[in-house]
Amino acid sequence: MWAAIEAGDVEAYGAYVHPDFTAFGENDTYLAEGRALELRSYADYLERAWDVHTEMHQPEVTIRGDTAWLTYYWTDAGFTEAGRFTSRGKSTRIFVREDGRWLCIHGHYTSVP
Amino acid sequence: MWAAIEAGDVEAYGAYVHPDFTAFGENDTYLAEGRALELRSYADYLERAWDVHTEMHQPEVTIRGDTAWLTYYWTDAGFTEAGRFTSRGKSTRIFVREDGRWLCIHGHYTSVP
Amino acid sequence: MWAAIEAGDVEAYGAYVHPDFTAFGENDTYLAEGRALELRSYADYLERAWDVHTEMHQPEVTIRGDTAWLTYYWTDAGFTEAGRFTSRGKSTRIFVREDGRWLCIHGHYTSVP
Amino acid sequence: MWAAIEAGDVEAYGAYVHPDFTAFGENDTYLAEGRALELRSYADYLERAWDVHTEMHQPEVTIRGDTAWLTYYWTDAGFTEAGRFTSRGKSTRIFVREDGRWLCIHGHYTSVP
Amino acid sequence: MWAAIEAGDVEAYGAYVHPDFTAFGENDTYLAEGRALELRSYADYLERAWDVHTEMHQPEVTIRGDTAWLTYYWTDAGFTEAGRFTSRGKSTRIFVREDGRWLCIHGHYTSVP
Amino acid sequence: MWAAIEAGDVEAYGAYVHPDFTAFGENDTYLAEGRALELRSYADYLERAWDVHTEMHQPEVTIRGDTAWLTYYWTDAGFTEAGRFTSRGKSTRIFVREDGRWLCIHGHYTSVP
Amino acid sequence: MWAAIEAGDVEAYGAYVHPDFTAFGENDTYLAEGRALELRSYADYLERAWDVHTEMHQPEVTIRGDTAWLTYYWTDAGFTEAGRFTSRGKSTRIFVREDGRWLCIHGHYTSVP
Amino acid sequence: MWAAIEAGDVEAYGAYVHPDFTAFGENDTYLAEGRALELRSYADYLERAWDVHTEMHQPEVTIRGDTAWLTYYWTDAGFTEAGRFTSRGKSTRIFVREDGRWLCIHGHYTSVP
Amino acid sequence: MWAAIEAGDVEAYGAYVHPDFTAFGENDTYLAEGRALELRSYADYLERAWDVHTEMHQPEVTIRGDTAWLTYYWTDAGFTEAGRFTSRGKSTRIFVREDGRWLCIHGHYTSVP
Amino acid sequence: MWAAIEAGDVEAYGAYVHPDFTAFGENDTYLAEGRALELRSYADYLERAWDVHTEMHQPEVTIRGDTAWLTYYWTDAGFTEAGRFTSRGKSTRIFVREDGRWLCIHGHYTSVP
Amino acid sequence: MWAAIEAGDVEAYGAYVHPDFTAFGENDTYLAEGRALELRSYADYLERAWDVHTEMHQPEVTIRGDTAWLTYYWTDAGFTEAGRFTSRGKSTRIFVREDGRWLCIHGHYTSVP
Amino acid sequence: MWAAIEAGDVEAYGAYVHPDFTAFGENDTYLAEGRALELRSYADYLERAWDVHTEMHQPEVTIRGDTAWLTYYWTDAGFTEAGRFTSRGKSTRIFVREDGRWLCIHGHYTSVP
Repeated sequence: MWAAIEAGDVEAYGAYVHPDFTAFGENDTYLAEGRALELRSYADYLERAWDVHTEMHQPEVTIRGDTAWLTYYWTDAGFTEAGRFTSRGKSTRIFVREDGRWLCIHGHYTSVP
Repeated sequence: MWAAIEAGDVEAYGAYVHPDFTAFGENDTYLAEGRALELRSYADYLERAWDVHTEMHQPEVTIRGDTAWLTYYWTDAGFTEAGRFTSRGKSTRIFVREDGRWLCIHGHYTSVP
Repeated sequence: MWAAIEAGDVEAYGAYVHPDFTAFGENDTYLAEGRALELRSYADYLERAWDVHTEMHQPEVTIRGDTAWLTYYWTDAGFTEAGRFTSRGKSTRIFVREDGRWLCIHGHYTSVP
Repeated sequence: MWAAIEAGDVEAYGAYVHPDFTAFGENDTYLAEGRALELRSYADYLERAWDVHTEMHQPEVTIRGDTAWLTYYWTDAGFTEAGRFTSRGKSTRIFVREDGRWLCIHGHYTSVP
Repeated sequence: MWAAIEAGDVEAYGAYVHPDFTAFGENDTYLAEGRALELRSYADYLERAWDVHTEMHQPEVTIRGDTAWLTYYWTDAGFTEAGRFTSRGKSTRIFVREDGRWLCIHGHYTSVP
Repeated sequence: MWAAIEAGDVEAYGAYVHPDFTAFGENDTYLAEGRALELRSYADYLERAWDVHTEMHQPEVTIRGDTAWLTYYWTDAGFTEAGRFTSRGKSTRIFVREDGRWLCIHGHYTSVP
Repeated sequence: MWAAIEAGDVEAYGAYVHPDFTAFGENDTYLAEGRALELRSYADYLERAWDVHTEMHQPEVTIRGDTAWLTYYWTDAGFTEAGRFTSRGKSTRIFVREDGRWLCIHGHYTSVP
Repeated sequence: MWAAIEAGDVEAYGAYVHPDFTAFGENDTYLAEGRALELRSYADYLERAWDVHTEMHQPEVTIRGDTAWLTYYWTDAGFTEAGRFTSRGKSTRIFVREDGRWLCIHGHYTSVP
Repeated sequence: MWAAIEAGDVEAYGAYVHPDFTAFGENDTYLAEGRALELRSYADYLERAWDVHTEMHQPEVTIRGDTAWLTYYWTDAGFTEAGRFTSRGKSTRIFVREDGRWLCIHGHYTSVP
Repeated sequence: MWAAIEAGDVEAYGAYVHPDFTAFGENDTYLAEGRALELRSYADYLERAWDVHTEMHQPEVTIRGDTAWLTYYWTDAGFTEAGRFTSRGKSTRIFVREDGRWLCIHGHYTSVP
Repeated sequence: MWAAIEAGDVEAYGAYVHPDFTAFGENDTYLAEGRALELRSYADYLERAWDVHTEMHQPEVTIRGDTAWLTYYWTDAGFTEAGRFTSRGKSTRIFVREDGRWLCIHGHYTSVP
Repeated sequence: MWAAIEAGDVEAYGAYVHPDFTAFGENDTYLAEGRALELRSYADYLERAWDVHTEMHQPEVTIRGDTAWLTYYWTDAGFTEAGRFTSRGKSTRIFVREDGRWLCIHGHYTSVP
C-alpha cells in the first residue's frame, strides 16, 4: 500500500482499500464513507500535490485474528502550487484480512502543530 | 463503559480498559501507552473537571470476530476551575472481546474547532 | 413558544417542540437530534444564563398546508457568570401542525458577527 | 437540481428554484429574496469559480404532504483566481411540490470552521 | 433631549422620541424599529452604565420646514461593571416637528476606532 | 440616481446630488462636505473599481413635505486591482425636493462585518 | 504650569490655560476646543489616575514676540485602577503672552509605541 | 504652499519652509530638524509616491502678530509601488512672517486609524 | 534522579548533578553553566510550582564506556499560582560515570507546541 | 564536517555521521533515527536552500574518552525560493570516536526567536 | 555595584553611578540623562518589583586606561503585583575611573524575546 | 567612517573597525566577535540592500583620553528585494584611538518600533 502511495498510483492504492472504508482525515470534520469517495479524494489530491514523501516513525502493529491495527507518527513533505509544504501527526489505521489480503478499512489521522 | 465515564468512576471505567490500551488523546502529541497511564490520566482529569456530560452522535459500529471498532462524533460540556468548557470532535475506538467481555484497547480522539 | 422561552420555562417550551425535532444550533457542528436532547440542552442553558431577552426583527412566515416556516433576525442579550453577553443572527424555523397545534420540528440558527 | 449545480448550468438550476425563494447564504448577513436574485448571484458565482465539486454527507429528508425539507452536511472544493478553496458546513433546504415538481423555496447554509 | 440623556431619565428622553423612531445603532446590524424598542434598549443601557458624559463636537443643523437633521461627532466616557469605557464617532439624527415639538425620528450612529 | 450609479456615470449622478451634500462615508472619520468633493471622490472611485453591482434590501422610505429619508441594507460586489471585493452595511440617505426634483443632501453609510 | 500638573491641581493648572485653548490629545480623533473642556477633561483624568510623574526630555523653545512654542519628548508613569501605566511621546505646545503671563493656547501630543 | 505640494514641486515647496523648520512627522519617533532634512525627506517621498491628493477639513487659523498657527484634519490618497494608500489625521502647523512672507517653521502631524 | 525530581528534593537531586553541569533549558536563550546555577534555578522553580508529575515516553539509552546519553519525550503537568500548566517536548541528557555513580552533566530540553 | 556542510556536500558530510545517528531537529516533533534518514533529509534540504552560511558562537567542547560533546550557538542565513532566511539557536552535538575518527551520533538543535 | 543592585539599595547603587550617567534602558525610546533620573527611576522600580535576582552570563571586560566597558548577557526574574516576570538580554556598560573608583557612566540594555 | 558606510565601501569601512570589534546588532541575540565577522556581515548586507541613507539625530560624544563613545538616534531607509524598508533606533558606539586613528571597537544598536 505504501509503495502505491509513494508512487501516487490511485489504482494500485485502491487495491488495498476496503469497499467499506471510512476515514477521519486530518482536515475532515465529518466522516468520509466509502472506497469511491476515498479514491476520488486521493486522485484529487494527486492532481495538486507532487513529490510527496512520507516517513513513518515508531510504528506499532497489533494483530487479532483477521483484524489488525497500526499506530504510527508520520512526517511528510511535498509540493503544491503554493510551494513546499510539510505536515506531521499521529495515525491509526485498521485492516481486515479478506481472501488472504489485508485491506485498510478505517483511517484516523490527526496532524500536530 | 459510558456509564462509568458519566459517573466519573475510575475503577469501573478501568474494568473496560484493556491492559495494552493505547491512546492518541485529543491533546496528545505522543502515544500514551498502558492502562496504568490511562487510569492515572483519567483520575487526574476527574480531579479538575466535574459535571461533565457527553453526547454521542451518529455512532457506527463494525464487528469482525472478537474485534470491533466504533466511530462517532462527540460533544461534551463541563466545568473546571476556569469555568464552563465545551469540546466536540470525532472519535475512533477499538475493542477486543476477551473472556466474553469487550475491552477498549485503543482510542483516537480528535477535537474539531 | 416565545413566551415560554422568555419565561425560561422548559416544560412549557417542550410542549411546542416536536418529538422529531432537529437543530443546527448557532454553535453546533453536528446535527442535534430529538426533543429530549433539545430540552436537555435548553435546561442546561437556563442554568447558566439568566435575564435573557430576545428581539425578533422582520419575521416572514410561509404556510403550506400543515407545514410552515419562519425566517427572522434575532438580537438577544443576557447574563452568564462571565457577565453580559449579546448575540444576533438569522434564523429559520420549521413548524408542523399536529392535532391542531403547531410544533417546531427543525431550527437552524446562524449568528452573525 | 444537484446535477444542474454540478454542471454549473444556471438555466437548469433555475427550473428547480421557486419564484418565492429566499436564502440565508453562508456569507450573508441579510435575507436574500427572490429567484431573480438567487440566479443572478449564482451566475455571478459561476463566473469566478470553476471545477467545484460538492459532497453531501448524511442527508436526512422529511416529507409532509407537498412540503419537504432536507438537512445535510456538505464539503466542497473548487478554484477561483485566488487558487483552490474548500468549505464545509451544515445545510437546511425546504422544498414545495407544485404541479408535480419539487421546487426549492428556502435555503439556509452555515459554514463550519 | 440632551439634558434627559445626561440625566439618564428614560421618561423624559421618551418625550423626544417619535413613535415611528428607527435607529441604526453603533453596535447594530439590523434596523431597530419603534419607540418602544428604543426606550427598552435605553432603559436596559442605563442599568449597566453610569456616569456617562457625552461631548458633542462641531454640530451642523439643517432645517427644512418641519424636518431637520443634525450631524456631529461625539465623544463619551462612562462606567460599566467592566470599568471605564470611552467611545467616539459620527452621528446623524433626523427630527420632525409635530404639535410644535421637535421629535427625533431616526438616528444613525457610527463609532470610529 | 441608482441607474447613474449602476452605470458609473459621474455627471448623471451629480444631477441627483444637492450642492450642500454632506456624507459620513463608510470609511470616513470626518464629515465630507459639498457636492464638489462628493463627485471628486466618486470619480476617483470609478477609476479604481469596476463591475460594481449593488443590491438594496428592505428599503423603507419616509416622506415629510419636501423632505424624505430612506433607510436600507446594501450588499455590493465588484473589482479593483486587488481583485474582487464585497461589502455590506446599513444606510441612511436624506433627500430634499427642489424644483420638483429629489436631490440627495446627506448620506450616512456604515459597513457591517 | 508643570508644577500644577505634577501636583494635580486643576485650578492652578487652569490659570495657565488660555480661554481659546485647543488640543489634539494623544487619544483624540477630533479637536477639543475651549478651556472649559480642557479643565473638565483634566479633572476627570485626575479622578482616575494618581501618582503620575512626567519627565520632559530634550525640550526646545522658540520665542517670537508674544508667541512661543515648545517641543519635547515626554515619558510618564502612574496608576489607574487597572494598575501601573506608562506612556511616552512627542509634544508641541504653543503659548501666548497676555498681561505679562504666558498662557498655553494649543497642545498637540502624540504617543509613540 | 499647498499648490506646491499638490504639484509635487520640491523647490517651490522649499520657498515656504523656514530654515529652522522642525517636524514631528506622522511616522516619526524623533524630531526632524532643519529645512535641508525636510526637503530631502520630501524629495525622497516624491520618488516613491505619486498622484497624491490631499483634502483639508475644518481648518482653523489663529494669527498673533507675525506668528500664526493652523489646525486641520487631513485625508489623502495616492499611489506607491505597493498600490493605492490612504491616510487621515490631525495636523498643527506654525508659521512665522519674515520679509512679508509666511514661512512654515513647525509641523506636527498625527494619523488616526 | 527522577525520584528526587518527583519528590521535589533539591538536595537529593543535586547528588545526581555533575559540578560541570550545563543546560539549554526549554525557556533558555543562553547556556546555563554550573551545578550551583542549576540547583538555584531548581529550588526557585520548586517555590512556585507544585504537584508536578512528569511522564517519560519512549526513552532510548546509549552507553559508551563511562559516558551515556538518553533521549526521550516528556509530558508533564502541575500547578503554579496561575493555575494548572502542562508541557511536553523532547529531551537529551548526557551522563558521566564518576566513582561508580552516573551524574548528569548536560541537558538540552525543547518543548513542542 | 563543517567544511562539508559549508560546501553542501552530502557524501562528505555522510562520512562524519554515525550509522546510529539520531536527531531532534529544530523543526522536529519526533526523533529522527538513522544515518539514512539524516542524509535523505540533508539532501532534500540542499535542493531547496542555497548560499547558506553558518556562524558558530562560543563553542564549548568536552571530551571523555572516546565520547565528546559540543555546545554552541549558531546563526545562519541563506536563500530558499521564498527568499532570504535567517535562523539562530543553541545546539548540542555528541560525537564518538571509532577507528580514530570522530563521528557525530546525536544532534539536538533548538532555534530561538 | 552588583551587590547594591541585588540588595536593592538605592543609595549604595548611587555611589557607583557617575553624575553624567546616561542610559538606553531596555524599555526606553529616548536617552535618559543624569544620575538623578537614574536613581529616581531605580527607586521607582524598587517600589514595584521585589525578589529580583539577576544572573550574568559570559561577561567580557575591556580596560583602556581609565575607561572600561563590559558586555554580557543577563537573565533575571522577580515579582511585581502582576506576578512573576522574567527577562533576558544583552548589555553594554561603560565605566570610568575617577579618584580610584570605577563609576558607571553609560548603560545600553536590550532585551531579547 | 560614515562616508564609507554611506558609500557602501566595505574596505574603507574596515579601516575604521578595530580588530577586536564586537557588536550587539539590532537583530542579534548573541555577541558578534571580531572585525572579520563584522566585515563579512557588512558585505553580505551590501549585497541585498541598496540606496540606504541614514540620518543621525542628537548625537552626544564623550572623550576620555584615548577612548570615546557616542550615543545617537538613527533613522534610515533603503531598499531590498522586498521593497523599501525603514528603521530607527538608538545606538552606542565605543571608539579607541590607536596610532592617531579612532577605531570603532564596540557597537550596540537597538531598533525602536
